Amino acid sequence: MPKLRNYFPILDWGRAYSRSDFASDAMAAVIVTIMLIPQSLAYALLAGLPPEAGLYASIVPILLYAVFGTSRSLAVGPVAVVSLLTASAVGQVAEAGTAGYAVAALTLAFLSGIFLLGMGLLRLGFLANFLSHPVIAGFITASGLLIAASQLKHILGVEAHGHTLPELLASLAAHLDQTNLITLALGLAATGFLFWVRKGLKPFLIRLGLGAKPADIATKAGPVVAIVATTLAVWGGDLSTDGVQIVGAVPQSLPPFTLPGLSLDLIEALLVPAILISVIGFVESVSVAQTLAAKKRQRIDPDQELIGLGAANLGAAFTGGYPVTGGFARSVVNFDAGAETPAAGAFTALGLAVAALFLTPLVFFLPKATLAATIIVAVLSLVDFSILRKTWAYSKADFTAVAATILLTLGMGVEIGVASGVLLSIALHLYKTSRPHVAEVGRVPGSQHFRNIHRHTVETAPHLVSLRVDESLYFVNARFLEDLIQARVTEGCEITDVVLMFSAVNEVDYSALESLEAINQRLTDMGVGLHFSEVKGPVMDRLKRSHLIEALNGRVFLSQNDAWEALSGSGAPKVVALAQPS
Amino acid sequence: MPKLRNYFPILDWGRAYSRSDFASDAMAAVIVTIMLIPQSLAYALLAGLPPEAGLYASIVPILLYAVFGTSRSLAVGPVAVVSLLTASAVGQVAEAGTAGYAVAALTLAFLSGIFLLGMGLLRLGFLANFLSHPVIAGFITASGLLIAASQLKHILGVEAHGHTLPELLASLAAHLDQTNLITLALGLAATGFLFWVRKGLKPFLIRLGLGAKPADIATKAGPVVAIVATTLAVWGGDLSTDGVQIVGAVPQSLPPFTLPGLSLDLIEALLVPAILISVIGFVESVSVAQTLAAKKRQRIDPDQELIGLGAANLGAAFTGGYPVTGGFARSVVNFDAGAETPAAGAFTALGLAVAALFLTPLVFFLPKATLAATIIVAVLSLVDFSILRKTWAYSKADFTAVAATILLTLGMGVEIGVASGVLLSIALHLYKTSRPHVAEVGRVPGSQHFRNIHRHTVETAPHLVSLRVDESLYFVNARFLEDLIQARVTEGCEITDVVLMFSAVNEVDYSALESLEAINQRLTDMGVGLHFSEVKGPVMDRLKRSHLIEALNGRVFLSQNDAWEALSGSGAPKVVALAQPS
Repeated sequence: MPKLRNYFPILDWGRAYSRSDFASDAMAAVIVTIMLIPQSLAYALLAGLPPEAGLYASIVPILLYAVFGTSRSLAVGPVAVVSLLTASAVGQVAEAGTAGYAVAALTLAFLSGIFLLGMGLLRLGFLANFLSHPVIAGFITASGLLIAASQLKHILGVEAHGHTLPELLASLAAHLDQTNLITLALGLAATGFLFWVRKGLKPFLIRLGLGAKPADIATKAGPVVAIVATTLAVWGGDLSTDGVQIVGAVPQSLPPFTLPGLSLDLIEALLVPAILISVIGFVESVSVAQTLAAKKRQRIDPDQELIGLGAANLGAAFTGGYPVTGGFARSVVNFDAGAETPAAGAFTALGLAVAALFLTPLVFFLPKATLAATIIVAVLSLVDFSILRKTWAYSKADFTAVAATILLTLGMGVEIGVASGVLLSIALHLYKTSRPHVAEVGRVPGSQHFRNIHRHTVETAPHLVSLRVDESLYFVNARFLEDLIQARVTEGCEITDVVLMFSAVNEVDYSALESLEAINQRLTDMGVGLHFSEVKGPVMDRLKRSHLIEALNGRVFLSQNDAWEALSGSGAPKVVALAQPS
Repeated sequence: MPKLRNYFPILDWGRAYSRSDFASDAMAAVIVTIMLIPQSLAYALLAGLPPEAGLYASIVPILLYAVFGTSRSLAVGPVAVVSLLTASAVGQVAEAGTAGYAVAALTLAFLSGIFLLGMGLLRLGFLANFLSHPVIAGFITASGLLIAASQLKHILGVEAHGHTLPELLASLAAHLDQTNLITLALGLAATGFLFWVRKGLKPFLIRLGLGAKPADIATKAGPVVAIVATTLAVWGGDLSTDGVQIVGAVPQSLPPFTLPGLSLDLIEALLVPAILISVIGFVESVSVAQTLAAKKRQRIDPDQELIGLGAANLGAAFTGGYPVTGGFARSVVNFDAGAETPAAGAFTALGLAVAALFLTPLVFFLPKATLAATIIVAVLSLVDFSILRKTWAYSKADFTAVAATILLTLGMGVEIGVASGVLLSIALHLYKTSRPHVAEVGRVPGSQHFRNIHRHTVETAPHLVSLRVDESLYFVNARFLEDLIQARVTEGCEITDVVLMFSAVNEVDYSALESLEAINQRLTDMGVGLHFSEVKGPVMDRLKRSHLIEALNGRVFLSQNDAWEALSGSGAPKVVALAQPS
């Protein structure tokens, strides 16, 4: 059953599951569970949903991914960016806190699941490549800032709304006078503590004589300490009567069976956001999964990953969750804690189910400010503006795409930001190929190698022009070459032959074929020979199916050197170009 | 004033204007005027406007193009495709025959003029290249069919509406029982006569002993004969009382001063159609102008053409016209008739002004069926399905774009048709570059030339893999190369060195740089050397600004032969590949 096994990777690793795998997986699951309980509550808050939605979104989706996913280390569940995107999309169709809002979130997960599954079955995983690395980096940085800004209201204890940085800051400023000072004190304390845990706790514990590994695990438990401490403070000091917002009653229950809303209006309103969430979630997930797989020389299959994530989202849609994906932080923790197989995920799901059943009363007095602090500390670690400096140094086009993505995400929201980044990347690429680099080449003395006459000391012949076309020829740049050759040939009247060196031409489409025919016609009229050299196999196969080769007034040479030998003329004066290599 | 002269090409040719230029231009103007009078009336009918709008659109725009345009032969005015696009766009905001309809047509010309002018000043003429030759060919063919179908109602003398072929045919079928038989007889006679004039008249006149040139001119006057004959028939037989639709009263006037409607609603509704009309009009115009200029070794400047056409459209907007562009048929006639400078256009404008002032009463009894016949015969000559066959033979991607353009234009209207063609061309191009051809190469014995081991008999070494990457490396295909190299290296365990031959890599963007760094890291971990050869100047300049070159575990070679000499090992067994050239 090779086909079936492809779709159910669990059949692969499940058969070879060993006792030592079990020990490793169980240990990893304990650590990840401790980390996920506060994180799930916090991300649900970010998505505008009741806290239990975060727990539910972490249970069934993990189990389904364990069956269908190909990564052995990926931990699936709610993540920061997808939670923000959910809040932005669902906020446009329903009021936060209403039943309609929760149903819309289920619908979003459902549509996302269907879309991912469809892409996977059609094997369209490569489409995720249209999100370039710089655009992703810029988007993650800007989203991190947006998420942190969106959580400030919980730290201040005020109301604030907005999907862009200016909106959020203006709304916060307008409500600043209503700041609840007790909430602020709790929030700042929690934030400060969590930053210290992240940066200072591990070296501190190691100085105290603890090993590196236990120190690491203790660091992961930091949020739990903050939660316990602030919950006790609120309960003991009865601070909720002073206006400190708390999580409140969370039902004690396994994930319920839920149905997404499937009205046409709702689907129409959420379709585009669902596609965006799917693509962004998929890219984040696959990047993490590939990085972790490479460390263990394992492979993941992007198309099967789509199926795994699609199943996970469908699971979320029917069990009270919201859109999920493979998270960066939790997957790295899972990997570092020694998870060997997706069974670690299943054990984590078990731990979270126990938490959902028995532990939820304990978070009644948990202040929302603490959850906000957890989110802020987590997302600010994603903010990294160095991509601006790196792309500026390397390529202005990439820099433009990153800068636009960051600015538009902050200024106009996540959806417009990332969509603009993708479209701008494509537009800039097309623009670059529309004005291809064309180098006039000569022979490097004593070799059969040809290089740019302006960069290298090379041999040339006055009546022979050899042009290396540094781009595939297609409709966007077809006319450019026509104009360029026309200009070059009319400028030197002793020219008798033009060789187009096609070593860098990977495609000649129909528009370019017509341009080449036009060039051949014009050069024929002018009595100038047109020759091709180093035409690649796939390009030549296609040109042979046209009339160009038989109409060509010159010849097709296997190599540029053959063309040089035949056309430069043994008796003709060869001159060594004066240009110095640069 | 080099700057000023660039923007006013009239300063160039105007200074050298001679008596012989005048004689040629005046002769050409007479012929073109005779041709344009019926054509202008007919295209106004196609656009859903009163007949005089066609005349007005041919007067001031021609004069303005003569001042700003760079082509010496282009004749600007209403053309078939743009008239159809106008009818489609304006029909969505106003009822044909109302004052609002005419104002909307002026607004469309105004927006189109502003857009063209803006593109010209920003020197964005190259953007027109995004319309590939096959998409244009498919669009023109489909539009020709649509236009012909839209005129059948005038031949039958019935009402019919629709912007797609199925709509038009269904509407015609529904009204077929109301066919006016006298109109049908006139229409069929006119159509038959005009087809005969186009195909049979010239040989017939030459057989009668007439020279080729006068025979040609007589052919151009064919429509005038049809118009005079059918007008006399309607007048003499009093056929308009039998229900034959006639042109009716046309004001005797020079072009009036008009103001386009500039309400925000109207602008919003017409903006996208205006951009589409501008781009399509520009592409048609530039194609004609370039073809004609090449015949006389003249050059046109696409960016200045945008300015010329922009001015012409603004002129149309303020003088009772509608969107105009450089027409194919009229420009060819103008060229063939001997026009030497844009002054020929100015004289044509004079002729049409005289017609608008004095001749309009003569067309009172002109049946609309005759005008429809003129259009049908003109546009059917544009219909050419051979592009389907040609692209099928050459490239399935191009074929797909053409077929989609034709089907969607016929089935969903001109705007969706051409927009889909452009987007599909771009998508197919990106798809092709997302899975680049990568050839494993070896040395052609006795040369320094390297070719695909599967196509040529070449030398290879078992521990050295040389891969020629046949595509620029950018975000869309960055991961593909990672996977491919990983797969190739793990498949042969004796491999010690990988050379990436970059002769066809014209760009390495930031995403691809990160992929190359990842490949270098992985190969380093595996103890395999990574080398580059034949990296082009512009690509190398950029790579030097990154850390890749210093981190590279291998070397960068000027030529693939240098890499081969250094890495194949003089004592190592070189094998001649068994593969036969194919």
